[in-house]
Amino acid sequence: MIIDKYNLRAKKINSLLCVGLDSDFEKIPDKFKIEEFPQFEFNKYIIEETKDYAAAFKMNIAFYEARGDKGIHELKETMEYIKVYYPDIFTICDAKRADIGNTNNGYVTSIFDWFGFDAVTINPYLGQEAVQPFLDRKDKVSIVLCRTSNTGAGEFQDLSVKHSVFDKNVPLWQVVAEKVSTDWNKNNNCMLVVGATYPKEMKRIREITGEMTFLVPGVGVQGGDLKATMKAGLNSEGLGLIIHSARGIIFSDNPKTEAQKLCAEIREYLT
Amino acid sequence: MIIDKYNLRAKKINSLLCVGLDSDFEKIPDKFKIEEFPQFEFNKYIIEETKDYAAAFKMNIAFYEARGDKGIHELKETMEYIKVYYPDIFTICDAKRADIGNTNNGYVTSIFDWFGFDAVTINPYLGQEAVQPFLDRKDKVSIVLCRTSNTGAGEFQDLSVKHSVFDKNVPLWQVVAEKVSTDWNKNNNCMLVVGATYPKEMKRIREITGEMTFLVPGVGVQGGDLKATMKAGLNSEGLGLIIHSARGIIFSDNPKTEAQKLCAEIREYLT
Repeated sequence: MIIDKYNLRAKKINSLLCVGLDSDFEKIPDKFKIEEFPQFEFNKYIIEETKDYAAAFKMNIAFYEARGDKGIHELKETMEYIKVYYPDIFTICDAKRADIGNTNNGYVTSIFDWFGFDAVTINPYLGQEAVQPFLDRKDKVSIVLCRTSNTGAGEFQDLSVKHSVFDKNVPLWQVVAEKVSTDWNKNNNCMLVVGATYPKEMKRIREITGEMTFLVPGVGVQGGDLKATMKAGLNSEGLGLIIHSARGIIFSDNPKTEAQKLCAEIREYLT
Repeated sequence: MIIDKYNLRAKKINSLLCVGLDSDFEKIPDKFKIEEFPQFEFNKYIIEETKDYAAAFKMNIAFYEARGDKGIHELKETMEYIKVYYPDIFTICDAKRADIGNTNNGYVTSIFDWFGFDAVTINPYLGQEAVQPFLDRKDKVSIVLCRTSNTGAGEFQDLSVKHSVFDKNVPLWQVVAEKVSTDWNKNNNCMLVVGATYPKEMKRIREITGEMTFLVPGVGVQGGDLKATMKAGLNSEGLGLIIHSARGIIFSDNPKTEAQKLCAEIREYLT
């Protein structure tokens, strides 16, 4: 199973840390900006500084699309670099994609085959039938948005919904968790996005989904509490979480120290 | 208002037709495939054939991303071509984007500024607070997915939801229509995606949203009925619809004839 790639790496280095290569051109140091491939050079630097602590790397594609075909090219270069030097590190394209049926094939080809990512984040609003081309890829992981980390996430995700599986009205995110963990996950290749900023919700999603793995943004700058997250989210194997941090590491004065520190904190709750 | 750009063009040529430049590389004729910029050359041909009937052009970015930086470059060339030769035709990037807060700035920069599209499709699941960077662009249109045209659209969109605005439970898509047309539309720059395959739902969304404009996929290959759509969806000005067709026109033996035919059908219901 493709999910084993993440678990093997996490166990090997005893870390659930995912370093976010969200390399916003405006924010990278000037010494990289003058390079021919600034985002790629910055990423190489961050990868080398943080690789010993990273079970996964996640790249939010928005930061690369902002520079048009140049940014896309540098994201591709970054993926080539990781595949050559650190092929056992799990790679996630944070793209939050979802289109209708076969149109998704364009995204599938782009993200899984052309870039070569192990996983992609997808949006559930169009339903399973729409995103089936992602789910059909048994060799790749689809990470479905369930409870996102932003402050306004509740506008739709908290709406009170009637659904036959539950004996009373539940928030929409619970229906997403239930459907993805049962119907969508036939190939054992689904995960969920569950923000660290909502530990109570995470606990409930853990109950609903069994051993499923969650991608957890929101620790660090967004204010999510690591202890509460780990307590609410770890599965019975002491895995099941991908703890993501980007800005707090990559734009710090010392990315290596920050990655090491967060990794050490994570390890405290793993023992 | 930016929405006037569409309305002016629609009135000028008496058409609500949006031609979809969904130029899947695998499906374009061989004579274009051997060109240096195959998708761009094909698009130029389609634009020239259909321009007299097109109030808008919509490009689903998935078909370009499938070819990596090359495809992105050719989509950019296509936009440059339209801006130079047909600047009054409304341009839509069908990207179904949505990320958290400032991360959206990458997409905003890419789609509105780098490519130069007039409008983008966005996904509501993360809430208004998340997509505010799109909505803040008064000079651009955000088209929010409401009732999509795919057969499995109902999995979440039809869930029965309790919401204070309505006196009984309503499907989720009604809450989306209500929130977008009131709270999200402060800059008068929102539209909704409403599939032609669901005319009953379209009628209800017209009631909820007043004069708002709908982007309507699903006519043609997907089986949506044009007459039912026009009857359910036109607003009080005889506008308010962007009738989208891609495959049925661009991959036909004679794109000009097909565009002309669909435009003529639309005109029947405009009089």
